[in-house]
Amino acid sequence: MNRRLVLSLTGKLIVYESLTMIVPLVVSLMYGGEDMMPFIYSIIITAFSGFFLSLIKPTDNKFRSREGCAAVALTWLAYSFFGALPFYFSGYFSGFEDCLFESVSGFTTTGATILLDVEALPRGILFWRSFTHWIGGMGVLVFAIAIMPSIGGSIINLMRAESSATTHRIVPKIKQTARILYSIYISLTLLEILLLIGVGMPVFDAFANAFSSAGTGGFAIHNSSIRYYDSAIIEYIIGIFVILFGINFSLYFYLLKRNFKLALKDNELLTYVAFIAVFVFIITVNIQGVFGSLDVAFRDSFFQVASIITSTGFSTVNFDLWPVLSKMVLIILMLTGSCAGSTSGGLKMMRIIILFKSIKAEINKIIHPRAVNPVKVNGKVIEGEATHRVFMFFFLYFLVIITASLIISIDNYDMTTTVSSVISTIGNTGIGLSKVGPSGSFSLFSPLSKLVLCFCMLAGRLELYPLLVLLRPSLWRKSTVG
Amino acid sequence: MNRRLVLSLTGKLIVYESLTMIVPLVVSLMYGGEDMMPFIYSIIITAFSGFFLSLIKPTDNKFRSREGCAAVALTWLAYSFFGALPFYFSGYFSGFEDCLFESVSGFTTTGATILLDVEALPRGILFWRSFTHWIGGMGVLVFAIAIMPSIGGSIINLMRAESSATTHRIVPKIKQTARILYSIYISLTLLEILLLIGVGMPVFDAFANAFSSAGTGGFAIHNSSIRYYDSAIIEYIIGIFVILFGINFSLYFYLLKRNFKLALKDNELLTYVAFIAVFVFIITVNIQGVFGSLDVAFRDSFFQVASIITSTGFSTVNFDLWPVLSKMVLIILMLTGSCAGSTSGGLKMMRIIILFKSIKAEINKIIHPRAVNPVKVNGKVIEGEATHRVFMFFFLYFLVIITASLIISIDNYDMTTTVSSVISTIGNTGIGLSKVGPSGSFSLFSPLSKLVLCFCMLAGRLELYPLLVLLRPSLWRKSTVG
Repeated sequence: MNRRLVLSLTGKLIVYESLTMIVPLVVSLMYGGEDMMPFIYSIIITAFSGFFLSLIKPTDNKFRSREGCAAVALTWLAYSFFGALPFYFSGYFSGFEDCLFESVSGFTTTGATILLDVEALPRGILFWRSFTHWIGGMGVLVFAIAIMPSIGGSIINLMRAESSATTHRIVPKIKQTARILYSIYISLTLLEILLLIGVGMPVFDAFANAFSSAGTGGFAIHNSSIRYYDSAIIEYIIGIFVILFGINFSLYFYLLKRNFKLALKDNELLTYVAFIAVFVFIITVNIQGVFGSLDVAFRDSFFQVASIITSTGFSTVNFDLWPVLSKMVLIILMLTGSCAGSTSGGLKMMRIIILFKSIKAEINKIIHPRAVNPVKVNGKVIEGEATHRVFMFFFLYFLVIITASLIISIDNYDMTTTVSSVISTIGNTGIGLSKVGPSGSFSLFSPLSKLVLCFCMLAGRLELYPLLVLLRPSLWRKSTVG
Repeated sequence: MNRRLVLSLTGKLIVYESLTMIVPLVVSLMYGGEDMMPFIYSIIITAFSGFFLSLIKPTDNKFRSREGCAAVALTWLAYSFFGALPFYFSGYFSGFEDCLFESVSGFTTTGATILLDVEALPRGILFWRSFTHWIGGMGVLVFAIAIMPSIGGSIINLMRAESSATTHRIVPKIKQTARILYSIYISLTLLEILLLIGVGMPVFDAFANAFSSAGTGGFAIHNSSIRYYDSAIIEYIIGIFVILFGINFSLYFYLLKRNFKLALKDNELLTYVAFIAVFVFIITVNIQGVFGSLDVAFRDSFFQVASIITSTGFSTVNFDLWPVLSKMVLIILMLTGSCAGSTSGGLKMMRIIILFKSIKAEINKIIHPRAVNPVKVNGKVIEGEATHRVFMFFFLYFLVIITASLIISIDNYDMTTTVSSVISTIGNTGIGLSKVGPSGSFSLFSPLSKLVLCFCMLAGRLELYPLLVLLRPSLWRKSTVG
C-alpha cells in the first residue's frame, strides 16, 4: 500500500476537522462561553496533529481501492479520536473511552449515548454532539471532495470506500457530484430548521434537532428525547424529515432536473415507502389494543417507525413497553435501514431488493431450469458479480453481529440487551431494547464492550470492508504489486 | 411438473411408512398392548391411503429437480400427517395440531415436544416418538432408495432434494451408496444400544435413547431428559455418540476402506472438532465460576455442546440458568449445526467453511486486486456458482428465521423465547431458551405458531428449497417445458 499517500490525505482531513470545531466554539461563546476552553484546546491539538501529518509527501497520488479503504478507515478513526477531545476536556465524561464512544456514535450518526443526563451539558458540547451527526451524515470524504481545491488522484475510490452501495456519479465529474449532494443536504437541513422554529421550537433546539435528524443520528438535547416537546406537529415534522433524509439524494437531483419518472418510480423509493406504510400499520394495530386511542397509536407508531427505519433513534415513547410483535418490527427495521445514498444506516433497501429478487429467481430456476431469470432493479439487470457481493455483505453483517454479541455477552446482561445493542450500533440506530431501550443508556457496558460497540458503529457506517481491510496485516506491507 | 409421477411415488412411500408402524405395534404388544389399537388403526389408514395413491400411473418416470423437490416435500408432509395418527388415536394429545407438531418434530429429528409429561405415555407411543427420529435421521427417501426394488428414473434428483448439501456418490451406484450409508447408520446405532445396556441402562431406554441420538433428534423418555439417569458414563456415551452421528457418513466409508487420509484430514471434520473443543472450553470456564467444580462444569459443558451442535437437544442441566455468554454460544451452535451428510441440522460446517473462506478471499481481493484467491475445501476449488448458492442459502435461512419470529411474536412471549424457538426448530435442535428451554415445552404456543414452527422444522430438515418450491403456484402447472 501507498502509506505516505494515505497518511498525508488523513492529515489534511484532520485539519478540516479542526475547522469544524470552530462552529461549536462560536455557539459556546454565544451562550456565555462556559465550555469555550475545551474547544480551544481541541482545535489546537487537532490542527497541529493534522498539519504535521499532512507534511508527509506522497510519491504518487494514485488511489487504488486498497488506498481508498485505508484512507477512509483511518480518517474516520482520526475524526472519532480528535472529536472526542472536546468531550474529554469538558470534564462531563467519566473516562476517555466514554468520550470516544460518544464521538464515534456522533460521527457514525448512531446516536447511542453513554450519558445519563444530557441536559447537564453546556451548550457548546451539546451542539458539538449534534453537529458531529451532521458532519458524519453525508460523509467526511464527500465533504472534503466537495470543498478541497484538489486532492488529486482517482478520487472515485475514496467515495466508493466511504459509501460503497451509494456511489454513482449523477453528473460526470465527481467533485461536482459531491457539491450537488451537499447543496441538497444543506437545503433540506435549513428547511427543517425554519419549520421547527416556525412551530415554536427554540432556535438552539431547532438547529440541534435538525442536525441530528439530517444525519439520521439521534443524539437528543433532552433526556426524554423528542417526547420532551410533547407536540404532535413537531413529531410529524421530524418524522417526515428523517424519512426524507432516508431517501437516496440522487432522487432529489432528478426531481430538480424535472425528471419525475426517474425520481418517483424508483424501485428503492417505492419499496421504502411500502415498508414504512406496512410497518406503521402493523404497529398501530398492535399497540392500539394495548394503549387505547387510534390517533395516539398512529402518531407513536409513525414517529418510531420513521425514527428507526432511518436509523435515527429519536424516541417519543418507551417502546420497550410495547408488545413483542412491535418490538420485533423495530428490530427488523434496525436491520433493513433506508435507501442507499442517504444518510441512514442498516443493510439498505437496495440490498434487500436484490436479495429478495435473487432468491425468487433461484426458486424459479428449480422449477424451470431453462428459463432466464435476470435480477432487475429500475429496469436494469444486476450482474451476477454485483449480486454476489450483496449476499457476501449480508453474511458479513451477520457475522459481525454474532461475533460482537458473543463478546458483549461477557458483561452478562440479558440476551435482548446484548443483541439489540449490537444490531442498533452496527445499523447506526443508537437505541435498542431492554437496558439500551429509550429509558436506558450505553453507560452500563464494560470498557471492552464499549470498544466493540465503537467497532460496530464504524463498521456499519463504512459498510464493513474498509475497517476489515484495515485489520489485515498484508495491507500494511509496502508492496508494488497491484 | 409431472404430477402423476410425484403422487405415485409419494403413495408408495406412504405404504412404506405403514410398515414402519409395525415396529412400535410389536413393542406395544411386548409391554401389554395398552396402546395397540392406535397403531392398528393408523397402519390400516396409512397403508390404504398410500396404496390408492400409488395406483396412479405415471406417463414417464423422469425425475427432474422440480419433481425431486416436490416428491420430497410431499413425502415429508405425508409422513408427518400419517405419523401423527398413532398420537391422535392414543388420546394422550389435546388436539390434532399437537399430534402433527410432535410427528413433524419426530421425523425432522427436532425433538421439540408439546408434552408436559412424557412419562405418562404408554410404551408403544413412547417408542414411536424415538423411532420417528431414527427414520427421519437418515432420510425417508434414502431409506426408500436403499430398499425399494426400483423406483426408476434419475433418482439422484430425489436424494439431492432431500439433502442438498450432502449428496455425492461414494460409490458409482446411487442405490449402493444408500445401502452403505444405511448399514453404517444401523451399525453405529446397534453399537450405542449395546454400550448403553452394558453400563446398566434398561433395554427399552437404551433402544429409545439410541434411536433419538442416532437421528440427532432429542425426544427423551423421561421428563428430565438424560439428567434422569444421573450418570456420568451414560452422559459421555451419549455425548460421544451424537458427535459421531454429526460426522459426514462418507468418512466412515473411507475409514472402512482404510483411506485414513481422506477420512481424518477432512476439512469439515477438523473444523467440527475445533468448534466443539473451543466452545466446550469457553462454556466450561464460563460456568465453572458460577457452579463450582471443574469436572462438573466440563461434564455439563461437553454434554450440552455435543447435544446442541449436533442438533440433538437432549439436556442434562437447565442451561437457561447459565450466564449469557454460554447461552449465546448455544444459540450459535444451534445455527451452525454439524457436518453435511450427517443426521444433524443447522447450516452445516461445510457451509460455514465456504462462507468464511469466501469472505477472506474477498477482503484479500481489495488489497491485491490482481491476485487469484480461489476458495478451496479439501484441496478442491469450490466454483463461484456453488459458493453463491451457499450465500443464498444463508440469507434464506435468516429470512425464514426473521419471518417466523415475526409471526410467533404475535403470541407475545419474550424475545428470547420467540427467537430461540424459531432458531431451534429450523436448526432441528428442538430445545431453546427461556420458556422453551430445558424446563419448558412448546405447548404454550398458539395453533398458528405451532404450524409456523412445523414449517420451520420441515424447512430446516429439507434445507429450505423443496418446501419453498412447493409453495410456488407455477410448480403445479402441467407444463412440458423443461
